[in-house]
Amino acid sequence: MHELIEKVFLKHFNDPLLLDQSDSAVMEVSESRLAFTTDAYVVQPMFFAGGNIGKLAVCGAVNDLVAAGAQPLFLSVAFIIEEGLELSELEIIVQTMAETASDAGVRIVCGDTKVVGKGQCDKLFITTSGIGQTQKEHEDIGSGKLIQPGDHIIINGTLGDHGMAVLAARNQLGFTSDLQSDCAPLNLMIQPLLDAGLPIHFMRDPTRGGLASVLCEITQNKNFGIEIDETLIPISEPVLGMCELYGFDPLYIANEGKMLMIVPDSSSFETLSLLQKSESGKNSAAIGRVTEKNPGRVMMKTPIGGTRLITMLTGEQLPRIC
Amino acid sequence: MHELIEKVFLKHFNDPLLLDQSDSAVMEVSESRLAFTTDAYVVQPMFFAGGNIGKLAVCGAVNDLVAAGAQPLFLSVAFIIEEGLELSELEIIVQTMAETASDAGVRIVCGDTKVVGKGQCDKLFITTSGIGQTQKEHEDIGSGKLIQPGDHIIINGTLGDHGMAVLAARNQLGFTSDLQSDCAPLNLMIQPLLDAGLPIHFMRDPTRGGLASVLCEITQNKNFGIEIDETLIPISEPVLGMCELYGFDPLYIANEGKMLMIVPDSSSFETLSLLQKSESGKNSAAIGRVTEKNPGRVMMKTPIGGTRLITMLTGEQLPRIC
Repeated sequence: MHELIEKVFLKHFNDPLLLDQSDSAVMEVSESRLAFTTDAYVVQPMFFAGGNIGKLAVCGAVNDLVAAGAQPLFLSVAFIIEEGLELSELEIIVQTMAETASDAGVRIVCGDTKVVGKGQCDKLFITTSGIGQTQKEHEDIGSGKLIQPGDHIIINGTLGDHGMAVLAARNQLGFTSDLQSDCAPLNLMIQPLLDAGLPIHFMRDPTRGGLASVLCEITQNKNFGIEIDETLIPISEPVLGMCELYGFDPLYIANEGKMLMIVPDSSSFETLSLLQKSESGKNSAAIGRVTEKNPGRVMMKTPIGGTRLITMLTGEQLPRIC
Repeated sequence: MHELIEKVFLKHFNDPLLLDQSDSAVMEVSESRLAFTTDAYVVQPMFFAGGNIGKLAVCGAVNDLVAAGAQPLFLSVAFIIEEGLELSELEIIVQTMAETASDAGVRIVCGDTKVVGKGQCDKLFITTSGIGQTQKEHEDIGSGKLIQPGDHIIINGTLGDHGMAVLAARNQLGFTSDLQSDCAPLNLMIQPLLDAGLPIHFMRDPTRGGLASVLCEITQNKNFGIEIDETLIPISEPVLGMCELYGFDPLYIANEGKMLMIVPDSSSFETLSLLQKSESGKNSAAIGRVTEKNPGRVMMKTPIGGTRLITMLTGEQLPRIC
């Protein structure tokens, strides 16, 4: 265990706070308003086109903080490792985590490792928690309280890429180049919007359950509805193809580098322009509106001029997608 | 999943921040110096005399923050659940977590749940992370920088109870009443020492690897040694009996409600008196000294007048003890 920690974890995660090897990291932050999040990652397989479980674990924590209107600062990482996991695989994952954290400008400051016997877990599970700092004026961004009829619905690119990339890896389909997880930290895309003072009425990263689930959750029991336009929703050809093949609806498929944003009509254009300047936002699109009609419901205009009711997923989701 | 979250988790964990069901909790703290910790819990079996995996996960996070000289405030909880886990067992565990957090005065403010297939984990793994607030004057308590020759080594009660209680549960031995895990949150015992301004040169909770491992870690490559006296170390009769039966050394066995403290000679008596007033500290004892001689080494005086060198554990520890 001591060797594993020194040769793999401390080699790549070399924050001075972590190198201390105390059980807690002590940090100073200039603001006293904090955002705190945690997620367990059990994605199977561990490696897929566009990422791996480690990249996912870092991006997930970062993006949950971003969705709360916070600037991500510190991460913790806890590994549960199945005896017999290839050290070389673990090292690639750890290295990816370090690189992703560095790209996102967040520090991995504390961690833990448990090893369980063969057959007692499935190779590797990772839980990350994150702390970010937030401003009073942004504290309601994650709550949905600010959403108003007339607001625009914006998504920063194509939907379903993560879920379909994992499914392809699971079934060992050979879609390596044209089907990639969108897994990415989104703080560098969102921070300029906050810095520019552009109002954001709501943000949520549409991971498990996809875009449809988030839209249903935020309209449930509310006095507004949401109308999206199918022709405006960006979906890549390979994802559309896979979804047809397996009978999935891309609106319900997990994303790991997407942020659903709801913004006022008045600043929607400026928000889109700024998003499109960022690598993760270059395919951003306004895909619909918050409406006074159909309160509590999510409706989708179809290409042939009809309207479809979007409902909460009731059956099985794709298991272990993140 | 929605049902599980509402009927089990939100029923017991009912912090307003958690009820929000955003992906991050936003908290305000009056101090900007934070302690942050994480640990994964994989104890097998999930239930043992004196606690369960949930109690352990809350106490572990609380005690790691306490060891950093911090006041624990907020916890996150991530569950990895094996398909088929009895809901009634999960509910007992969740309820225990809520009660333990409430006893310790900490808030569970965010969480996550993943379900994996049968055989892909072993019933239930829990990862908790914790945030505490700390003062500048306490920031070096966890580092070992303040330890000086002449300091006293204090432990707040008997050693090895947790490890032996888990082993007894694992082997279905019938030691229910006389062998209990010491699993407990220690902030209510330690806070009065900090409030009274009593100097603490070092704290660490001797979990995996026990007291011996902590003592070895803190003396390694240092210009001081440590001498403990075997006759002064509190160990209960049932733990001694189990250790003899299985061939374990109680100094290396995991504790989950113990804090090793190193304090100056001048305030050692007052520290002990204050500790002994607390339920978790009533059997506190001074068990040795930091010495100028034997730098880098931990020595133990034996009852027959000899001296034994205490070394870092090299072989297998008891697996999945926490």
